[in-house]
Amino acid sequence: MENSKSSPQPNDSPQIFVLRWGHRPQRDVRLTTHVALTARALCASGFILSDTQDPHIQETVTKITKSWGGNFHFEMGTPWKRAVRDWKAKGGVVVHLTAYGENIQTSDILNRIKKTNKDLLLIVGSQKVPGEFYSSEVSDFNISIGNQPHSECSALAIFLDRYFGGKELAKPFEKAKIEIVPKERGKEIKSTMDFH
Amino acid sequence: MENSKSSPQPNDSPQIFVLRWGHRPQRDVRLTTHVALTARALCASGFILSDTQDPHIQETVTKITKSWGGNFHFEMGTPWKRAVRDWKAKGGVVVHLTAYGENIQTSDILNRIKKTNKDLLLIVGSQKVPGEFYSSEVSDFNISIGNQPHSECSALAIFLDRYFGGKELAKPFEKAKIEIVPKERGKEIKSTMDFH
Repeated sequence: MENSKSSPQPNDSPQIFVLRWGHRPQRDVRLTTHVALTARALCASGFILSDTQDPHIQETVTKITKSWGGNFHFEMGTPWKRAVRDWKAKGGVVVHLTAYGENIQTSDILNRIKKTNKDLLLIVGSQKVPGEFYSSEVSDFNISIGNQPHSECSALAIFLDRYFGGKELAKPFEKAKIEIVPKERGKEIKSTMDFH
Repeated sequence: MENSKSSPQPNDSPQIFVLRWGHRPQRDVRLTTHVALTARALCASGFILSDTQDPHIQETVTKITKSWGGNFHFEMGTPWKRAVRDWKAKGGVVVHLTAYGENIQTSDILNRIKKTNKDLLLIVGSQKVPGEFYSSEVSDFNISIGNQPHSECSALAIFLDRYFGGKELAKPFEKAKIEIVPKERGKEIKSTMDFH
């Protein structure tokens, strides 16, 4: 786990790492890639693909970070129990994103999470997660992004957007070789990449 | 296109339909399913899988709607040009979600979209979209959810969350046979399903 504060934090908020649990290498490759890219684009600082290896995802995330900037940490294969234990040992808080948790809209859970003012490890499941994820031994908070079934990718996106108050979508990424110039019509890219 | 207003609208906002373009039946099945479920869970009123058929997605979405409630419209195979033409003919507005568009955070585009007070067709691409999607013949607005590459699923989620001001995550769904009771620990479901 990397502790440098060089990622494009939208403000002085604590660092957020995303832990993806239950990834199935062939079946989930695109979805997990989207989860990782969402984490990066919305200013999480790192991504842990727990308990398994998937070089395709590593390659995509590394390539995107190299071109689009920032200092996004990627690791894979770490057992989830060790990741959680290490995170807590360093004083961090563990947040489990689940449709069963306290609703981000109807409860005060987001404020309680923010008030800890600590680094967050967000657990994002894929298949059905082990029951112990809900317990206080693992998760300090169980938060739901609505209580309907939808997508861990969407849930993560809304959590980060609300946590950072939208600022994450305006933040420039350091050392970017490619940048989009937002516009009303068409596509414009600024690039310092050498295509020769 | 269905025009009933019986979906779980978070308020009297106009209806939103999502048009998924460029779906590749095998490759994109899980991602497109997540896009459709996000649309439903976040109170869009319908989903159009354009230009192709995918019975797996239809089955999943229909099953979820039957159990979890609401009146979510699903259609597939409609050519995108016809869907756009019909939408505009009925006075609706077309919004293209793209990383190249005006940034939802740094521009006033969301307010301009809301001010139209019209039904919205949200175009969500998968592969690289045709250049004409950016033109005024197709899209009234090109909006980006940040200008970094991430996920159409995340982009859709954040758009809907901001459009509805979060209320979509608190809205009960009509005729639900299953409901989650949000809680701090563990899982609780209320169900009127007959499991016999």
